[in-house]
Amino acid sequence: MSGFIAVHSGAGNIVDETKYQRVIKEACIVATDILKNGGSAMDACEAAIIRLENCGNTNAGFGSNLCWDGHVQCDASIMNGSNLHFGACTNVSTVKNPIQLARILCEGQERMLSMERIPPMVMAGVGAENFAEEMGCAMIDASAMISSKAKFTYNHYKSKVGDAAKVTSTKIENSSDPSETVETSDVSPLDTVGAVCVDSTGNSAAGCSSGGLILKVPGRVGQAATYGAGCWATDTDDLSVATCTTGNGEYLMKTFLAKEICTDLFTSDCAVTSLHKTFKAKFLESPFLPADQCLYGGALSLIYYPKNNCGEVLWSHTTKSFCVGYMSTQQKTPKFVYSPLPTYSLPGKSSVVNGHNFHLRV
Amino acid sequence: MSGFIAVHSGAGNIVDETKYQRVIKEACIVATDILKNGGSAMDACEAAIIRLENCGNTNAGFGSNLCWDGHVQCDASIMNGSNLHFGACTNVSTVKNPIQLARILCEGQERMLSMERIPPMVMAGVGAENFAEEMGCAMIDASAMISSKAKFTYNHYKSKVGDAAKVTSTKIENSSDPSETVETSDVSPLDTVGAVCVDSTGNSAAGCSSGGLILKVPGRVGQAATYGAGCWATDTDDLSVATCTTGNGEYLMKTFLAKEICTDLFTSDCAVTSLHKTFKAKFLESPFLPADQCLYGGALSLIYYPKNNCGEVLWSHTTKSFCVGYMSTQQKTPKFVYSPLPTYSLPGKSSVVNGHNFHLRV
Repeated sequence: MSGFIAVHSGAGNIVDETKYQRVIKEACIVATDILKNGGSAMDACEAAIIRLENCGNTNAGFGSNLCWDGHVQCDASIMNGSNLHFGACTNVSTVKNPIQLARILCEGQERMLSMERIPPMVMAGVGAENFAEEMGCAMIDASAMISSKAKFTYNHYKSKVGDAAKVTSTKIENSSDPSETVETSDVSPLDTVGAVCVDSTGNSAAGCSSGGLILKVPGRVGQAATYGAGCWATDTDDLSVATCTTGNGEYLMKTFLAKEICTDLFTSDCAVTSLHKTFKAKFLESPFLPADQCLYGGALSLIYYPKNNCGEVLWSHTTKSFCVGYMSTQQKTPKFVYSPLPTYSLPGKSSVVNGHNFHLRV
Repeated sequence: MSGFIAVHSGAGNIVDETKYQRVIKEACIVATDILKNGGSAMDACEAAIIRLENCGNTNAGFGSNLCWDGHVQCDASIMNGSNLHFGACTNVSTVKNPIQLARILCEGQERMLSMERIPPMVMAGVGAENFAEEMGCAMIDASAMISSKAKFTYNHYKSKVGDAAKVTSTKIENSSDPSETVETSDVSPLDTVGAVCVDSTGNSAAGCSSGGLILKVPGRVGQAATYGAGCWATDTDDLSVATCTTGNGEYLMKTFLAKEICTDLFTSDCAVTSLHKTFKAKFLESPFLPADQCLYGGALSLIYYPKNNCGEVLWSHTTKSFCVGYMSTQQKTPKFVYSPLPTYSLPGKSSVVNGHNFHLRV
């Protein structure tokens, strides 16, 4: 059996990419092993993300960024291109692998609940956690989701706020006091994770998982839990397309970036050109986003022509860098790519696109 | 000052429309009073929905449907057509008027938080409730959101489940046992509320508020909190378009129904035809929805040509009935409409569209 997986560890300003290299490669190997053994794209996608959630170095699952109140609140979602089902969870603190809960919700779309109730597609907070426990998800104490590194980073940024009394936990206010201003690229490690996958039947899947921005307001719902924003996958007999996104959550949400990228890829002759156009017209120049702000985003996409057994993996980002990895079931070792924004490009204002072809033996 | 408001009390199978008539008219009067006094479309839209949330007869705010666990969990959202900002809350049980919190989140999109953090657009659960309290929203004890009518209805349907031990609270299972099967139209009072509005400057707004389906799984996020699904509003110099939706939440979410309706209205010559087409192609025949299920949905839309001071209010639904009301600042009394599905049409399988022109004196 064959298939292809691509994963990322977030678009951001990555100082040391080596910390991601190992886990990205491992995630690719875990996924391709599943694909080789006849597992579905959904199986492989979920397993790759679980590997990334568990590593402690990414902003997903264990080791996620801490909210303003010092807790971890995770979002995750997954979409199945073959039946267009989607599942997501948000604001979960005790589910070890949020992507697992998202997967269960996605699979649950297939059948009605008792009393002909429509199954939930997205779940939040305590209700989502109780549901996860009933469904047999691995549960964890909320405090055990906090890594020492996340705690250290939290303390570092929290101390930068200076007079904490001046800035209440959630107050929406204009930060005109320069003492409170910290470089956005500095406070925003964006290293959420995601994966796109296609299996031997040509079915695609896309998923993502995120702890949200550091010091986020508790209760905030991010793009990783938002339909259309965090991931998207659609298959036809002729073409399978899947995308996952990372970056400033609200900007990805406002632009439905994952969905828009897939929609454009479906009707395009050249995938790289299409991705570049979507990033420019529907993200960097979107009327839904503030023109005066840096817009940080990244996307990892996959297109696959099942009749020709060939496809393309491609990525784009407006951040200084983006780490991706990919592997087909024919490859002996996964490929790791550190993608930098060209030095002449302004982060948050311009994008770079790159990609690679692949062929599956079936 | 002038303006126009339209509100609805949900698409469903309405046995006695008189219970909605009074509050729908009151909501229209509250909103037009605000518009006459120079209030914005956002002000009027929020006030109309607050009136509907507070009445106890609708499935929003006080008197909302109860979840499986016997609690109220509300969703609400609002969108400002003039700046394309959106705000939503989900899973809130102690915020008296969820639409008020949605409005605060929407307005909050205008400025960064301290430390250049992007303000949250959607918030959930306890975090959302704490935020609401800090922002000065009227708070209420969770038990005080439960009306005696909602409690009675809950007990009625809960008892229909029969052997409660057989059906655990959230278990996703195939309800093949006929003793558990209850008519969907029976268990699904869909009477969520919504409003669309345009003010004297031609700015539009759309909002919605919902308690979700009765016996919903606690933690479920509904369309009223979902970007693109529950409400949408977009203004240009030539045209303002606003829509709010009601019905089977997950189906409205999967089809981004509010957004799709607005997008299609923007490029159409005939609003009624456009709404009919959108309901058919993008809802009833959507590849994202199960073909073998009844698809219940309704939408209330408004288009306005600011250069001609004229517009159209229109609505569509696949449910047996839909109650709407509308009023311009020139009207002395609001108009209430009980819209039935034609007797030859199958509920959940076909739609009806109707509308009315209006003209504003400016």
